[in-house]
Amino acid sequence: MTSTFQADAALSVNASSERLVARLIEDAARLHVEITRTDGGTVIVDAGVNAKGSADAGVLIARICMGGLGRVARRIAFDDAPLWPGFVEVHTSNPVLACLASQYAGWSLSATKEQTGGKKFFSLGSGPARALACKEPLFDELGYRDRHDRGALVMEVDRLPPQVVIDKVLNDCGLAPDKLVIAVTPTQSVAGTVQVVARVVEVALHKTHVLGVDLAEIVEGSGSAPLPPPAPDGVQAMGRTNDAILYGGRVHLTVKSDAIAKRLAAELPSSNARDYGRPFADIFTSFNYDFYQIDPALFAPAEAWVSSLESGATYHGGKVDRALLEAQWSAS
Amino acid sequence: MTSTFQADAALSVNASSERLVARLIEDAARLHVEITRTDGGTVIVDAGVNAKGSADAGVLIARICMGGLGRVARRIAFDDAPLWPGFVEVHTSNPVLACLASQYAGWSLSATKEQTGGKKFFSLGSGPARALACKEPLFDELGYRDRHDRGALVMEVDRLPPQVVIDKVLNDCGLAPDKLVIAVTPTQSVAGTVQVVARVVEVALHKTHVLGVDLAEIVEGSGSAPLPPPAPDGVQAMGRTNDAILYGGRVHLTVKSDAIAKRLAAELPSSNARDYGRPFADIFTSFNYDFYQIDPALFAPAEAWVSSLESGATYHGGKVDRALLEAQWSAS
Amino acid sequence: MTSTFQADAALSVNASSERLVARLIEDAARLHVEITRTDGGTVIVDAGVNAKGSADAGVLIARICMGGLGRVARRIAFDDAPLWPGFVEVHTSNPVLACLASQYAGWSLSATKEQTGGKKFFSLGSGPARALACKEPLFDELGYRDRHDRGALVMEVDRLPPQVVIDKVLNDCGLAPDKLVIAVTPTQSVAGTVQVVARVVEVALHKTHVLGVDLAEIVEGSGSAPLPPPAPDGVQAMGRTNDAILYGGRVHLTVKSDAIAKRLAAELPSSNARDYGRPFADIFTSFNYDFYQIDPALFAPAEAWVSSLESGATYHGGKVDRALLEAQWSAS
Repeated sequence: MTSTFQADAALSVNASSERLVARLIEDAARLHVEITRTDGGTVIVDAGVNAKGSADAGVLIARICMGGLGRVARRIAFDDAPLWPGFVEVHTSNPVLACLASQYAGWSLSATKEQTGGKKFFSLGSGPARALACKEPLFDELGYRDRHDRGALVMEVDRLPPQVVIDKVLNDCGLAPDKLVIAVTPTQSVAGTVQVVARVVEVALHKTHVLGVDLAEIVEGSGSAPLPPPAPDGVQAMGRTNDAILYGGRVHLTVKSDAIAKRLAAELPSSNARDYGRPFADIFTSFNYDFYQIDPALFAPAEAWVSSLESGATYHGGKVDRALLEAQWSAS
Repeated sequence: MTSTFQADAALSVNASSERLVARLIEDAARLHVEITRTDGGTVIVDAGVNAKGSADAGVLIARICMGGLGRVARRIAFDDAPLWPGFVEVHTSNPVLACLASQYAGWSLSATKEQTGGKKFFSLGSGPARALACKEPLFDELGYRDRHDRGALVMEVDRLPPQVVIDKVLNDCGLAPDKLVIAVTPTQSVAGTVQVVARVVEVALHKTHVLGVDLAEIVEGSGSAPLPPPAPDGVQAMGRTNDAILYGGRVHLTVKSDAIAKRLAAELPSSNARDYGRPFADIFTSFNYDFYQIDPALFAPAEAWVSSLESGATYHGGKVDRALLEAQWSAS
Repeated sequence: MTSTFQADAALSVNASSERLVARLIEDAARLHVEITRTDGGTVIVDAGVNAKGSADAGVLIARICMGGLGRVARRIAFDDAPLWPGFVEVHTSNPVLACLASQYAGWSLSATKEQTGGKKFFSLGSGPARALACKEPLFDELGYRDRHDRGALVMEVDRLPPQVVIDKVLNDCGLAPDKLVIAVTPTQSVAGTVQVVARVVEVALHKTHVLGVDLAEIVEGSGSAPLPPPAPDGVQAMGRTNDAILYGGRVHLTVKSDAIAKRLAAELPSSNARDYGRPFADIFTSFNYDFYQIDPALFAPAEAWVSSLESGATYHGGKVDRALLEAQWSAS
């Protein structure tokens, strides 16, 4: 289906997040991130490679990642027997731009051993600079290209990007070297865990797109997911942030038509996927670490409420799997 | 009973909200509101008539409506089987000024067909500009009149106000035309739903006043209410925002004396009203759309905790009616 | 055990909180605090002695008390049968500096009758100015001394400090008189209750230290506690804020090593203390108001989750005592 989504050309995800990027640099000591600058002046924000980073850094990077168009906050549960002590909460009145044009980790950035002069490099880029480069077909569907003289990119990777990758980003974005900021958040870091779990609404938007639903349908998005500590093992860390969303994530979307609301509430939840029910790390291992073997329908929040502006009805589907999360995350 | 409430003359609800009004205009694209200016320079913020508006716009307008003296935020529930996925949360340490001198929709603004040159117009005005005009007897009881050279008014109505009404507001407020901002939020819009549901503490304050309790008693106010999507039908939309408060709203007030705390916890909840127990739209319809037939005691939150500074005791009354809300709002 | 904690010298708890202190003064009318200046220009913020103060003032003072390195907010519960309507929520990615170098009430400030020319004075000082004076042995263990030309101190006491105490603070902090701000929050005030209950994470950090755990272990801290109204009686007021933490407080800490996580989850909760199980005011009274007779292990949150970065495991211990809080706080 062709998307009839029309982005507001007045909205710049890079301009909207500029203030947050400035704060990330200015508050480096408080956030436990390390700031370095390349010879050309590109700012690299290390939020977990050599620096220890922090949950506060993760929240701020998540807000940057949404192009300044979303609200992200940590919460602590109040009820008597909470699923988990801590949560990430996300709200956006611009779900398509915030989540798909900015937050989605859709830009493949790699370099060969020859190019880096060392190990080969691979990372998915996310965040507002994606919308300057528009290297992904998704941007044609969104009909959105940001034009701004500054940009910020987030890389979920366990080392700092080599110059050749930085140069590629600068070139594709059309940015002067000193106008780009790259935040690096390893999956196994505290900041990385927060910024990935904060993708709970983005994951729902992406699946909505995969389901072929017209993105112009999506009006509002909110979500929450439990926030585990990072796992020390790489596969487990990736598994854990996925489990937070797949088995603990909840979204509330507002869409236009009643039929889409009903359909999304039924089809969005991860329980629709063939591989649903096992910890993500187990699934990933069982497929020999080949992502493309995993049923794409799994990448979704556990539970969804979808409200329709057409009918005023709210449909509900899926359910948080408390037992699975506790079995994975709790020690005794 | 005569109110012994004494407003702090140093507090200007229009000055305190000025920064928020500026943000509403500046962030128009992000908030999906449309800004127009009359020939005289009065700013009209359309948050749901021709513009689509947004939940974020609704939150910001709610904060403006409280004269900048309250905190309003959307929340998403965390517990296993929440009443509803989304909530509005409100806090104010200036409940009387924020809710009654500003947020209460007490200013009747109308124009005849002759005056508009088209359809007749009616809207209730709320927000800080009310306290510049002081056209309502309530302001005598509050002993409060704001003096500020800028003002903001909120109108819950489904079309933009005619010039004759704008002129009346300017005249009554004593404002230069380019110093007034009017935000328009239809009941059936997303922003309108948010800003009405955010009146949960105001509704409690207004009933406190109706009960004849001295407003000087009220020290602090907090509240929450579930946030439904707007209903497409006008009567249903109005019913829905009322149900959110009447059957899903909760407040925690802090008052001075123990006797008042005990009394308010018992008498505030909507369950004290004759018409309690049916969806608001049904009640309204059964009285032939005549508001004045409805027991005024119904306009109240479902549940109240009232703490007393005199005794330190906290009294509790009423209860959220989960079944009624689910029957009204959930689809399957 | 010697602490191997290394404070980031770039972090100034007084600089980080300066903006919040400015807001406390600027928003005095909204916050219901009274600002006075001594002849030398020291600013005294009365948040509950002669002024009525407010919950909003309490939140802001709590944030100042954490040296600007923590987030503090009031919340209202959403679930069907909440433990209590209102809560305080606290998060910090700098738990040791925020809680121990700043928020902990560890600075004894007293004056004799001869010195005051009236009643003798005693108060514990908390907040960032402690880190300028460094009069407590704790600062040697932390290896932290703030250097900044402005400072803020919080005193939990029911009268304004005499000049002799102000002079002592100025002298010990090395501050010019007009560069010090002192906020005064009586235990029996609304603001005082909020700022004490907001110590839920600090109490956990302090007990961690008392248990001899290396503070370098502690990476992140979050917590919540129910927020009661102040009790009119002094001992009851003190008891109530303690009960909020001892029987209603929850923390989620992230530490480095697995062994420490396991140990803290078991040993942190107040239920480990000999005197656990009775309202704090009863315990205090039974020991003839002698603090030093109370088992120090009692000063702790009711419930703790502790996550380890080493293992990725999360341990859980303790439990909120809903029955005790309801019996103490609820009236009917």
